[in-house]
Amino acid sequence: MEKISDKVIGRLTQYHSILGDCIKNNIMTVTSSVLAQLLKIDDSQVRKDISMLNNAGKSRVGYDSIKLKETIEKTLGFSNPKNAFIIGAGNLGSALAKYNGFEDYGLSVLALFDIDKNKIGTKINSKPVFDIKDLPYYTKDMNVEIGILTIPADFAQEIADYAVKSKIKYIWNFSPKVLNLPSDIEVWNENLMGNFLQFSYKISKNS
Amino acid sequence: MEKISDKVIGRLTQYHSILGDCIKNNIMTVTSSVLAQLLKIDDSQVRKDISMLNNAGKSRVGYDSIKLKETIEKTLGFSNPKNAFIIGAGNLGSALAKYNGFEDYGLSVLALFDIDKNKIGTKINSKPVFDIKDLPYYTKDMNVEIGILTIPADFAQEIADYAVKSKIKYIWNFSPKVLNLPSDIEVWNENLMGNFLQFSYKISKNS
Repeated sequence: MEKISDKVIGRLTQYHSILGDCIKNNIMTVTSSVLAQLLKIDDSQVRKDISMLNNAGKSRVGYDSIKLKETIEKTLGFSNPKNAFIIGAGNLGSALAKYNGFEDYGLSVLALFDIDKNKIGTKINSKPVFDIKDLPYYTKDMNVEIGILTIPADFAQEIADYAVKSKIKYIWNFSPKVLNLPSDIEVWNENLMGNFLQFSYKISKNS
Repeated sequence: MEKISDKVIGRLTQYHSILGDCIKNNIMTVTSSVLAQLLKIDDSQVRKDISMLNNAGKSRVGYDSIKLKETIEKTLGFSNPKNAFIIGAGNLGSALAKYNGFEDYGLSVLALFDIDKNKIGTKINSKPVFDIKDLPYYTKDMNVEIGILTIPADFAQEIADYAVKSKIKYIWNFSPKVLNLPSDIEVWNENLMGNFLQFSYKISKNS
């Protein structure tokens, strides 16, 4: 299958979330118009997205909830489990560590890292908090290449450099800071402010 | 000016963040290629985005950092301050309440709301935590129409319905749940898992 665009991936995850709810509530068939209504998008868009998937479980009455959910999981590679560290055990890092939903999507957070002596040695949602100094040891020992960066902007670059030295190769960056890193490092900027501004811009155009 | 797409808004915010750093470090002129390199995008894309803005402060040596930053702020309406409540004072709600960066973008969080008696009456980052029951009173009293929803998935729909009854009109939804709300309510889904999956999908295609 050809590469899927970010927008389509975003929608597939939302269909996935709705399908999970439907199955919980014993709704075993879902139509494209129900999905479209919940997401406030066009029916035709939903049908187009789903038609790209192999084996989407379509029948005359709609899509089979379980089959479509599984197909989305296979398409997006949830079944390919990935291990990650959270770097920064502050409020946001702790919030993400306590969020168990990641596991459903094949992401296991194995540990957190911080510089705060009061945090090191404790556990957050059964996950140990280690000294950031020991990051090189643990990336190797636990075979982890994904770092979820939740560091204040002022230290983000320095810690990201250290993570890269410690053999982290993929960075999910929640720090409100654009990082300058070697080109072989993949960075995904979780630009919360940018997301808010898109929303805010929408609000101001409406009012 | 015509309506700006979400992608462009996302990039403008990132330019804005970089410009802020530059100004802090006394770098008063920035070229499109520096911006492009940091964001790993094409130089021509940066020039195109910025050329859409009025008065971008372009000279032969590059863009004036302060002028370009201000122009982005004006374009995206930061100067139009907005008040919001955080609904749910758990880990994520607290993390967002402690994040002072919102103010820079014209968003003031005035208070948090929760059902937990141990939280009600406390303050988080000088912001009071009120009883969720009193939401209708405070939306009116403080003239707030934006709710930042940080509620576990299982209660998100119920609390969102209550927020709408309480006259919240714009919902920035961090709950991992697609909400079913009246069509006049604007919802912005902060689909963290979807964002991760885009990243995860990228990783799996690379390896």
